[in-house]
Amino acid sequence: MNANSSNRLWIYDTTLRDGTQREGLSVSIEDKLRIARRLDQLGIPFIEGGWPGANPKDVQFFWQLQEEPLQQAEIVAFCSTRRPHISAAEDPLLQAILSAGTRWVTIFGKSWDLHVTEGLKTSLEENLAMIQDTIEYLRSQGRRVIYDAEHWFDGFKYNREYALETLHAAIAAGAEWLVLCDTNGGTLPHEVGSVVKEVVAVVGDQNSPQIGIHTHNDSDTAVANAIAGVLEGARMVQGTMNGYGERCGNANLCSLIPNLQLKLGYSCIETEQLAQLAQTSRLISEVVNLAPDDHAPFVGRSAFAHKGGIHVSAVERNPLTYEHVQPEQVGNSRRIVISDQAGLSNVIAKARTFGIELDKQNPAARQILQHLKKLESEGYQFEAAEASFDLLMREALGKRQQFFTIKGFQVHCDLVSRIEQQNNSALATVKVTVNGQDILEAAEGNGPVAALDEALRKALVNFYPQIAEFELSDYKVRILDEHSGTSAKTRVLVESRNNHQRWTTVGVSTNILAASYQAVVEGLEYGLLLHLSTEAVLQPIASL
Amino acid sequence: MNANSSNRLWIYDTTLRDGTQREGLSVSIEDKLRIARRLDQLGIPFIEGGWPGANPKDVQFFWQLQEEPLQQAEIVAFCSTRRPHISAAEDPLLQAILSAGTRWVTIFGKSWDLHVTEGLKTSLEENLAMIQDTIEYLRSQGRRVIYDAEHWFDGFKYNREYALETLHAAIAAGAEWLVLCDTNGGTLPHEVGSVVKEVVAVVGDQNSPQIGIHTHNDSDTAVANAIAGVLEGARMVQGTMNGYGERCGNANLCSLIPNLQLKLGYSCIETEQLAQLAQTSRLISEVVNLAPDDHAPFVGRSAFAHKGGIHVSAVERNPLTYEHVQPEQVGNSRRIVISDQAGLSNVIAKARTFGIELDKQNPAARQILQHLKKLESEGYQFEAAEASFDLLMREALGKRQQFFTIKGFQVHCDLVSRIEQQNNSALATVKVTVNGQDILEAAEGNGPVAALDEALRKALVNFYPQIAEFELSDYKVRILDEHSGTSAKTRVLVESRNNHQRWTTVGVSTNILAASYQAVVEGLEYGLLLHLSTEAVLQPIASL
Repeated sequence: MNANSSNRLWIYDTTLRDGTQREGLSVSIEDKLRIARRLDQLGIPFIEGGWPGANPKDVQFFWQLQEEPLQQAEIVAFCSTRRPHISAAEDPLLQAILSAGTRWVTIFGKSWDLHVTEGLKTSLEENLAMIQDTIEYLRSQGRRVIYDAEHWFDGFKYNREYALETLHAAIAAGAEWLVLCDTNGGTLPHEVGSVVKEVVAVVGDQNSPQIGIHTHNDSDTAVANAIAGVLEGARMVQGTMNGYGERCGNANLCSLIPNLQLKLGYSCIETEQLAQLAQTSRLISEVVNLAPDDHAPFVGRSAFAHKGGIHVSAVERNPLTYEHVQPEQVGNSRRIVISDQAGLSNVIAKARTFGIELDKQNPAARQILQHLKKLESEGYQFEAAEASFDLLMREALGKRQQFFTIKGFQVHCDLVSRIEQQNNSALATVKVTVNGQDILEAAEGNGPVAALDEALRKALVNFYPQIAEFELSDYKVRILDEHSGTSAKTRVLVESRNNHQRWTTVGVSTNILAASYQAVVEGLEYGLLLHLSTEAVLQPIASL
Repeated sequence: MNANSSNRLWIYDTTLRDGTQREGLSVSIEDKLRIARRLDQLGIPFIEGGWPGANPKDVQFFWQLQEEPLQQAEIVAFCSTRRPHISAAEDPLLQAILSAGTRWVTIFGKSWDLHVTEGLKTSLEENLAMIQDTIEYLRSQGRRVIYDAEHWFDGFKYNREYALETLHAAIAAGAEWLVLCDTNGGTLPHEVGSVVKEVVAVVGDQNSPQIGIHTHNDSDTAVANAIAGVLEGARMVQGTMNGYGERCGNANLCSLIPNLQLKLGYSCIETEQLAQLAQTSRLISEVVNLAPDDHAPFVGRSAFAHKGGIHVSAVERNPLTYEHVQPEQVGNSRRIVISDQAGLSNVIAKARTFGIELDKQNPAARQILQHLKKLESEGYQFEAAEASFDLLMREALGKRQQFFTIKGFQVHCDLVSRIEQQNNSALATVKVTVNGQDILEAAEGNGPVAALDEALRKALVNFYPQIAEFELSDYKVRILDEHSGTSAKTRVLVESRNNHQRWTTVGVSTNILAASYQAVVEGLEYGLLLHLSTEAVLQPIASL
């Protein structure tokens, strides 16, 4: 990586570390790997993967990435400076970060004297030594170091001299980046700008170390703060996808990247990668199981929605009049309530990813679109359920194969109070017709969905032995229209896999069991389809 | 109203007009009246009520306010300039705005030549005449006029001279405020600042007219843009509560007011009124029936949430170290999050928020902590389920009241393939003991959880009539250890409410019905507890 080009910026994503601090967000190792690979495709150069010393799950995440590395991105491990009054080599946290096996590490240290004396309860001198020793030790172990100056802006405000000493300690030890963090998120853009300007002037030579900026959204200005830093010379921008993060979140990369690249002329990621931004944002929100924000700038469903007659025709005549950027540049689309033109080209584009060429004149395209709109208004969502979308297209084109027909399904659960004894077993019975033959099967499971799945497999496996290879690998539930409480609609996403592929299906119903059943049944159907046909369908699904 | 004091700002709320452009937001006249009165109490000086010419509901809203006027605020009617080539007096839209009977009116006109020729399809000269005639006419009818310069920043960028001519037309006609609008939301803060600076210099004398700023969030910088305008001399700030508005929303007054007042020293509303901000924000989200954004700066439930051991004890010693403003200043409160990193000091701090004083030496504190860790390792999560946490503490302290005992629970579902016919109904039976009496009840629901909930209410309502007031307002499902597919553990969060409080409970099981059942049962139990005790427990929960 080199920093010569003056308009080049380095985006540093911390969704997997700072982002997961968001209340209510939790991710598995699989989720983290999936997000990291997607960010890699998006062209993010630095991806912070976690804090291996603080979280055993993160250790495993880094090990898995050592076995199957990312394509382009540097995966970065995060850690604090060593503890007071021990040597860096003795600190188990630093041993953990080394064992993560990354080329780059990010070390955060205290910039604010108050945090040294009140938080760490050590002396200001010891804090400087902690910063310097830690970075020197990691450099001696062959690591390249990014230094995150925690609470930078508050520290600088209250004790400018000391704050600058901490940076000089990091510089002396060989840090390649100094990242100024507004940890409490209280700073406003004009203050960020003037502080960054001063730091750039003090640090002098722009080539090593360079300055980065890390902002939080407590003042609702995280994106503006990061921009203010960049305009004064910061060259690394830290943030998270969808602005996830503790309290009010971090600077939202989904807003920052297009602002910096499309409006300010900086170079962050490739143009084609930028056109994947909205999809990436939505995929990540599905993986972490949070409803996407429809009103999110650039990537939200409503970001380019237009209503009103004159307005709409004006937009169509000259998009510049009502749109600050072109939605396609960020992978979003204009949405005009009265016209389904945009939808139709979406469907056509989507069909193409499954190897199906549709024409705008083809009535099947319009039929798929109408069916899709109806299902979406019912709460279906195909962004993350491409297998169900493929089945839907095949049906519209008269190409959906009937492997089996389900005649009926019953589930029975008997629960007792957990204070007395836990009893989770559920019983399911299923009646299926295959090749004109009626099959009745029953099964138990430690939950109603497991019982449904088991009964269905028992009924089908004699006809389709490959079903034994299928596995339900992920099961996600989202309550739609949450206001309605237990009568709300439920959307279930089921991810299935065989030995070499994964595919996702969707079901929607007010009854969570009915929704699960739909997704499970389509998952089995699609698995059979994949087994029988090795054509184009495989490709987009397998891109995990 | 006078504009002499140099640090006085005029907040102009357009929640009731621009805010209602948000997709998915709709309000009745009663809703609008309720919001207006609440904004009046908050001390907002200008409240834009609607566009009476465009929306018949708005006409009635203004009439109702004529009968029962607001206490302090000026209610403002909104309208476009007259149509091309008719006189202002002939324009029915202007007749409608007059009949609204407000002292102040806001007129918006075109600043961008492109919109005049392509949108209005009239000449640049006629547009100037439209602005001037309209304002002069309204002045002649005794109205005070705010002029909204639509698309100001784009217009100024593409044709600076013409844009300035439109302002001069408004000045000549007697507008008292010139509001510079970033209608497409594409402008960044540094550009807003430099344009406002130029306009202030051109308009000259700061007393009449004064400059206002109206920003949209398409670049994720609406709040920063408004601040940039103020820093260069704008004295009116237009925005909406909770940032509601078309596409990505308007500048969020819930962020702007505290930033301007607490950080920049401007005077917007009284200190006591500012301390009502969070409550007002939440009330408005309830009235418009949108889930409040927990992560909203200043007013969100998570805005001052802290996790992690050292961190929490540091916050308690010195809030300045981790909080950019004091939560009480904006009517919010600090919240200690119970998460799997919970240490003893977290538990003690949390207990204190429920009015329970624990000592580090008290064995109950350690017992709660151990129980908590065990439950968390099973997948429970109390971050968002404070009611369940309270019940858990009461149990450890021997203070948990037994309102009822559940003896058994059965659920039965009969599903058929959705291809044939959708059938979502589920049947539940429940056996409960209350005051030594056994009750058996059955109920149907359009899903198994709804049926469970219904059966339980039927069984209990004769003993606890207040249950009729409880409502299940939110239901969230998260699959843990997703690797295990349908056998994975399920965590259910249930939010319940009565007429003035909300509380959240949690359940975990491999069986989604068992998990739901736990959360639903604890939700009912906690509701009964809240009803019976009006002690300290109410306080942290009651912050609707």
